[in-house]
Amino acid sequence: MKLATIRLGDGTTTAVRVAGDALVDLGLPDVGAVLASAGGLEVAASADGERYAGADAAFAPLVPHPTKVVCVGLNYQNHIKEMGRDLPEFPTLFCKFADTLVGALDDVRRPVETEQFDWEAELAVVVGRQVRRADEAEAEAAIAGFTVLNDVTCRDWQFRTREWLQGKNWDSTTPLGPFLVTTDEVGGPRPALDIRCEVNGQVMQQDNTGDLLFDPVHLVRYVSTMIRLNPGDIIATGTPGGVGHARKPQVYLREGDTVVAEIEGLGRLENRVVSEGS
Amino acid sequence: MKLATIRLGDGTTTAVRVAGDALVDLGLPDVGAVLASAGGLEVAASADGERYAGADAAFAPLVPHPTKVVCVGLNYQNHIKEMGRDLPEFPTLFCKFADTLVGALDDVRRPVETEQFDWEAELAVVVGRQVRRADEAEAEAAIAGFTVLNDVTCRDWQFRTREWLQGKNWDSTTPLGPFLVTTDEVGGPRPALDIRCEVNGQVMQQDNTGDLLFDPVHLVRYVSTMIRLNPGDIIATGTPGGVGHARKPQVYLREGDTVVAEIEGLGRLENRVVSEGS
Repeated sequence: MKLATIRLGDGTTTAVRVAGDALVDLGLPDVGAVLASAGGLEVAASADGERYAGADAAFAPLVPHPTKVVCVGLNYQNHIKEMGRDLPEFPTLFCKFADTLVGALDDVRRPVETEQFDWEAELAVVVGRQVRRADEAEAEAAIAGFTVLNDVTCRDWQFRTREWLQGKNWDSTTPLGPFLVTTDEVGGPRPALDIRCEVNGQVMQQDNTGDLLFDPVHLVRYVSTMIRLNPGDIIATGTPGGVGHARKPQVYLREGDTVVAEIEGLGRLENRVVSEGS
Repeated sequence: MKLATIRLGDGTTTAVRVAGDALVDLGLPDVGAVLASAGGLEVAASADGERYAGADAAFAPLVPHPTKVVCVGLNYQNHIKEMGRDLPEFPTLFCKFADTLVGALDDVRRPVETEQFDWEAELAVVVGRQVRRADEAEAEAAIAGFTVLNDVTCRDWQFRTREWLQGKNWDSTTPLGPFLVTTDEVGGPRPALDIRCEVNGQVMQQDNTGDLLFDPVHLVRYVSTMIRLNPGDIIATGTPGGVGHARKPQVYLREGDTVVAEIEGLGRLENRVVSEGS
């Protein structure tokens, strides 16, 4: 099953289920609300409602108001090895605030305060139920499915201090979506899917999500050791090699660029870079 | 004016205004909702409603669901100098998720997974209106007032990786409250107030909020450069010297300890440490 959150003409949003070329209105404001509702995905699978043409969909952030967006640092083994680093014992975690999120086809807003606006295509876990200190089976069951996140980053701000938060939390910079694709459609809770990022048609990142050092189930277990995970919470699992900051010479996103982050079977984020601020 | 969020007998919460020994029900679920409502503090100042005895108040987290809790690292100049460090050019920022928050008199839950559970008394800014890229005057006006936060930290987890998040985000570990005290009651948006932390009656931290390197107005400007701040958002301004991890020998919170974080004119967090997990 594929779900999305789309914008309606009146400025509100609604959750929909993809049914062939159509989108079926689920009568709830967004996918986060679907996951938090009684019955959750099971009810969504058979719910009926108004139908919209899929081609017209204006995607909102898949979950507009998650209580947590937990992000993982270095996690692709090929990338860790190519950087000459040892495999870490623990995942490195940082956060994004919900106000960073935009829809799958929205513009991303490059602030005038940065000179180093960079891409990071990522597999994102969408949490389906509340868990704390999940064991293996509970963690697997807590994963509703997956989506795509582009962890767009202001590198100059990321490295101003030892904490990355201020490079990662610029308003309206982080596309999330377009779909929640349930685990059964991608071979389970540890999917091995091709992931790639393109800038103006040039491939910048290419890897497979099966290469993750800390897989989605491990991450749900690890984070839920600390804190409850709620329906709609997002765990962004890290990005493969090929970011602009690590290239020689370095390359960054400029106004007018188009950045695409795509994962096999999950869908595609395609975002134009616009300038913001004065 | 002083506002609080208190628990009612039926499991819900409500926002109240302190009126002498009484608490006046403001008809909204929490202080975050008051700040987000039309009229905000102005309406709250004159609203009338059911009255409760102040002595009976069961404080909930002052703002139970802020969209952001932004925390600042090293910020007290005396502490920076005593550590032999240079004054930093930029504030170091990290986050807390809302699920870390507890009420002013609640137990704090020491997870069995840590051996290094530490205190950090902090002045917390409560944002009163939405701002982005605030100038000086806008930042001053955006500060509704102040409260107290104890940034209780699992040091062993904080230093597992280079990012502090996983030491700072354990469920139900972070008291916030008891009151929102408006800026006019503490001499404006850059208050100089005595701050202290006691463990089992022994003074562990003692300083003055006038010693902050990056003051509340600066922090609102800085964070809002990156991302919108919303009514009810919290900025925890950092902690003075005297944390347990920096003592010789090191001291940590144990089950049965009582930790008090208190700021002149703002009030007092008093929390018993209980063990959690198995």
